[in-house]
Amino acid sequence: MKKALIAAFGLMFSFFSYGQPSASKRQANNEQPKAPQSDYPYTAIPFTSVKLNDQFWLPRIKTNQAITIPASFERCDKTGRIKNFIMAAEKKGKFCTTFTFDDTDIYKTIEGASFSLSLFPDKKLELFIDSLITIVGRAQEPDGYLYTARTIDPLNPPGWAGKERWVKERELSHELYNSGHLYEAAAAHFQATGKRNLLDIALKNADLVCSVFGPDKMHTAPGHEVVEMGLVKLYRITGKIEYLNTAKFFILERGNYKGYNTKSKDPWQNGAYWQDHLPVVQQREAIGHAVRAGYLYSAVADVAALTGDKKLLNAIDSIWLNMVGKKIYVQGGAGAVGAGERYGENYELPNSTAYNETCAAISNVYWNQRMFQLHGDAKYVDLLEKILYNGLLSGVGLDGKSFFYTNAMQIRHNFKHPDMEAERSGWFECSCCPTNVCRLLPSVPGYMYAQHGTDLYVNLFASGVATIPMGKKSLVLEQQNNYPFSGDLKFMVQSKDKLAFTMKIRIPGWAVQEAIPSDLYSFRTNKKEEIVIHINGTPVTYTMDKGYAVITREWKKGDKVEMNLPMNVQRVYSNDNLKDNKGLVSLQRGPLTYCAEWADNNNRTSNLVLPATVNLVPEFKADLLNGVTVLKGEAIVIETGKDHLSVSSHTQPFVAIPYYAWANRGKGEMNVWLPETIKDISIIAQ
Amino acid sequence: MKKALIAAFGLMFSFFSYGQPSASKRQANNEQPKAPQSDYPYTAIPFTSVKLNDQFWLPRIKTNQAITIPASFERCDKTGRIKNFIMAAEKKGKFCTTFTFDDTDIYKTIEGASFSLSLFPDKKLELFIDSLITIVGRAQEPDGYLYTARTIDPLNPPGWAGKERWVKERELSHELYNSGHLYEAAAAHFQATGKRNLLDIALKNADLVCSVFGPDKMHTAPGHEVVEMGLVKLYRITGKIEYLNTAKFFILERGNYKGYNTKSKDPWQNGAYWQDHLPVVQQREAIGHAVRAGYLYSAVADVAALTGDKKLLNAIDSIWLNMVGKKIYVQGGAGAVGAGERYGENYELPNSTAYNETCAAISNVYWNQRMFQLHGDAKYVDLLEKILYNGLLSGVGLDGKSFFYTNAMQIRHNFKHPDMEAERSGWFECSCCPTNVCRLLPSVPGYMYAQHGTDLYVNLFASGVATIPMGKKSLVLEQQNNYPFSGDLKFMVQSKDKLAFTMKIRIPGWAVQEAIPSDLYSFRTNKKEEIVIHINGTPVTYTMDKGYAVITREWKKGDKVEMNLPMNVQRVYSNDNLKDNKGLVSLQRGPLTYCAEWADNNNRTSNLVLPATVNLVPEFKADLLNGVTVLKGEAIVIETGKDHLSVSSHTQPFVAIPYYAWANRGKGEMNVWLPETIKDISIIAQ
Repeated sequence: MKKALIAAFGLMFSFFSYGQPSASKRQANNEQPKAPQSDYPYTAIPFTSVKLNDQFWLPRIKTNQAITIPASFERCDKTGRIKNFIMAAEKKGKFCTTFTFDDTDIYKTIEGASFSLSLFPDKKLELFIDSLITIVGRAQEPDGYLYTARTIDPLNPPGWAGKERWVKERELSHELYNSGHLYEAAAAHFQATGKRNLLDIALKNADLVCSVFGPDKMHTAPGHEVVEMGLVKLYRITGKIEYLNTAKFFILERGNYKGYNTKSKDPWQNGAYWQDHLPVVQQREAIGHAVRAGYLYSAVADVAALTGDKKLLNAIDSIWLNMVGKKIYVQGGAGAVGAGERYGENYELPNSTAYNETCAAISNVYWNQRMFQLHGDAKYVDLLEKILYNGLLSGVGLDGKSFFYTNAMQIRHNFKHPDMEAERSGWFECSCCPTNVCRLLPSVPGYMYAQHGTDLYVNLFASGVATIPMGKKSLVLEQQNNYPFSGDLKFMVQSKDKLAFTMKIRIPGWAVQEAIPSDLYSFRTNKKEEIVIHINGTPVTYTMDKGYAVITREWKKGDKVEMNLPMNVQRVYSNDNLKDNKGLVSLQRGPLTYCAEWADNNNRTSNLVLPATVNLVPEFKADLLNGVTVLKGEAIVIETGKDHLSVSSHTQPFVAIPYYAWANRGKGEMNVWLPETIKDISIIAQ
Repeated sequence: MKKALIAAFGLMFSFFSYGQPSASKRQANNEQPKAPQSDYPYTAIPFTSVKLNDQFWLPRIKTNQAITIPASFERCDKTGRIKNFIMAAEKKGKFCTTFTFDDTDIYKTIEGASFSLSLFPDKKLELFIDSLITIVGRAQEPDGYLYTARTIDPLNPPGWAGKERWVKERELSHELYNSGHLYEAAAAHFQATGKRNLLDIALKNADLVCSVFGPDKMHTAPGHEVVEMGLVKLYRITGKIEYLNTAKFFILERGNYKGYNTKSKDPWQNGAYWQDHLPVVQQREAIGHAVRAGYLYSAVADVAALTGDKKLLNAIDSIWLNMVGKKIYVQGGAGAVGAGERYGENYELPNSTAYNETCAAISNVYWNQRMFQLHGDAKYVDLLEKILYNGLLSGVGLDGKSFFYTNAMQIRHNFKHPDMEAERSGWFECSCCPTNVCRLLPSVPGYMYAQHGTDLYVNLFASGVATIPMGKKSLVLEQQNNYPFSGDLKFMVQSKDKLAFTMKIRIPGWAVQEAIPSDLYSFRTNKKEEIVIHINGTPVTYTMDKGYAVITREWKKGDKVEMNLPMNVQRVYSNDNLKDNKGLVSLQRGPLTYCAEWADNNNRTSNLVLPATVNLVPEFKADLLNGVTVLKGEAIVIETGKDHLSVSSHTQPFVAIPYYAWANRGKGEMNVWLPETIKDISIIAQ
């Protein structure tokens, strides 16, 4: 099916992986989008072309389908989110949830369910979605407007909605945010099912938005970005240039509003909270609400790719360098500051109050994938992998139905903070994160491969089989590995046709002693290990290009590439600018960041010291946390006397677990960073 | 001389203690101010009526005269502050210091020197001041305007000054702040010397200010208050009602400006930084820059007293309760937050970053004295005493030439913060604090006594002799004590005339188990001790009224009142709302707050634990820090191994010194609060 599609448009037509219906469906609908003038030079292979059979992602994707998605729909129902649409259709009642953007939870769950349906067809689920779409469609006003918070009772909308359509869009109403998630969901649903029912609703709404906003029409910078990404997806499906133009208009509109107090340092007062403090082309710093930021930067990448706008490209290149060099936690979390769920100042990455919204990690994955698609550099995938396996994945529990809104760097029994969650919740009043996880997980295989001309990029590692178009032929490539716990990788060609192409396999930064693609964190040693690649049992020479091992040959069935990425236990240290991390170490093995959790360390972790001389040994534990490699060693533990008037220290066995797996065994202390020495202590008398 | 004055106007004419020239000088100048319609019911006895011979204040006042004042004048010269006046007179050159309010350092030093001259006449100093006044006078513009930053080069004033007079008064220019300190200095100089040279300059400026500002004229809320207090003093000297009216106008003008962003939480954006966020009569919270706040509240008290305005009175009564109940440190420091040198939120009193500007303590003394004068309640004097002996006095070193701008609550060797000073400096670029100390110290005896009808209030304790008008007679009262180190107090009547009056002797809160006049801090026990008062060797019964022991009798020469205020060592605990102080204790004995300093505790204090069971014994050390009573006991000390990989605890002798005397022996750790137990520890790896 995919082969036919690619054949139809050829490799020169790069498309974004999630915006693409099957060719047959498209033809049936008489749609024939024009190829964009320019686009991402590096094209992702859609997740639908990759069939996983691994032990890491596949079980999670199945849990997402079996548990998370039904639970999400059920909660949308129970909390009144579906009722809002029904009331809007009937134009009576009273908006019955808290946030005017609660509509998006339904859109996001439909999006996740659609992705999931592509992988595991499920007629019942498909029908349920259809019925939901019918409900959504009835809530849409005749001109395309769709925003239940206003439509239910247009004369008395909730305060946040504003008295008139879009008048509070800049700060509060999130009308375009709702539209954006509708478009994302519609694109996914169309791609997964070929059905137009949700797409038509989205297009009608998008036509209204494009008719209302523009250089000679209404001006606004959307308060919570995502409509820009959504419009780009609709453009990719329909080829309708207005959608792209309006997305670009929204981007360029930022920084134009004159009502801010430019002297204020309050990000709500100067517009920085929603990235509206400067024209995007002048922005150089990851700033403001981190989810919004990631969606904006993703859309900027989309528009830069599709229009060739160099100024936009320069802006996000700079912003990315700022983010990766000064504003990201060691586990890939972003958005350090709870007040505003936002990026802090440069090097403002406190451990005790790290906010790290799960949605911010998700939006950062979107952004990094697009950065890769622009530049074809493995460093973006290195960061994407870091976020995916750590700061993002920690957002959902192993049970698939408990979630973190924030992702802590440490939990200390005597430090309570309203933002610091030590225990996952089933649902939040602001439930953006669970529904965002829903839609992200099934799409993970879509980040594994990409193409550029005749180059095949292997970005992520997981056992499974991918079917990849190669001109008029196609390559079937199998991965066999036990990633992320083992660095033993095998890639096997299974398709019959001989195919001459260049395989570019990402050699992860962590395998060559780079903790992160910046100097923010580093390993103890920076001695580069040489990675030997065997083809069919024989070592081969290869060159490195932008983080990829480059192997060009005529590939034939049975060809086997093998390599062993060295999974040493790494001690990670922070740049001196992270003052709070001075003297502290974190642990990494392969792509995984580790943490010490109470359950493995005699109920405490904040009293542990991990001297630099301690040898840490990996050990796979099949029965622990769905199977994880733990790190074992010996720590110094400091204990106070029962009378609370004495202190002493002794050694104790030490165990670290992958960060993503913490908080699945009850509530207690956790530390990503541990001291290596005791230079001093602070007495806590509480 | 004073007797004659009091006789001339009678007791019914209450006057503010510092605004009063000698009667003979006033008559020579043909000035006869009208008595205000209403005024403070409790009248302070001016410091010039009190001759100290004690070991605590007198040496400090002498040091202030011998060292601080000359050093201050010298620094005014060396830094270009005097040159600014000379250039203004010549209308050429370029304003050569940093701040447009640097003129005030000269005014404040003149004020301090004038007070000091009243106590210790010094012809040379008087002549030097006269020459300075001449220089100041030449810098005044013909219409009375006096602000060197503009007059030097009116077409190119420094940015902070604004292009035109007063256009930046609200936020930046401090033109009226300069005027206010000019008036304060002029009043003091006139009182001390009877000379009109500075007074005439001040009156000319005040006439200009009154002609420019008013309900039908220019509107502004002065950015840094003090002009209001100054105008009241000029009103008291001249009886010119315009001065009082303009002072009241400035007060009522606050909260009227429409240019603020009322939704912002940034105190610079919403006006709270300079108490301009609400009309004063609606203010209920001590807020914004703490020095400005204290000056405003002092002026509000003045105007409330002089006009009988109940709404203003209610406002400062409420604000005072907020300050004493939620916003003051245990040593009497105010203004917790460095960013803005301002009051924090309720209960925001961090130890590690306590700002506690010396000037804020001084302005709080001014305010509390006025609160006493309004209400005649000892609680205001309790707080005044707390500030005076602790958080204010720590601002000046024993050498009289080193100063703290901020007054720390703790110094920790591994915690550096730009605001946290561990060592006094000779002078600051912004030198408000040294010059404010200059003017405060010689005036301390003015806070000792007050009158209300035939009641004599004895507020503070220090050996010396006071001459106090009693109708047409006068009382000579001697105090003999070794306060604040001993609670043994003697009061002896030395005047010949028999005098029937009520002596009201303050029984300090600390002597009856109240740490502070609110529930913010409390002693371990609240068992009230009974204080026995002897007259001429015989115990007498007395009643208590608003914190005073009330003794009414016909007093005759030789009458001796004796009492012993119990100076137990008190453990002080914080209200539970001060989360950071949970489990911590501070020490107090008499009016003195104690601290542990490195020099007495084996070079460290942040590693000390002071269990609740430890007995603390006072011991007077004549050769330590100019003579102090220390507290001795035994502490637990926690030490880390030399390899920084182990921790242990043991006991060690413990010494606490009066807080005011810290940082006179070099730089090192200091703690006001100490833990009583070790519930936990935090490992510092730096």
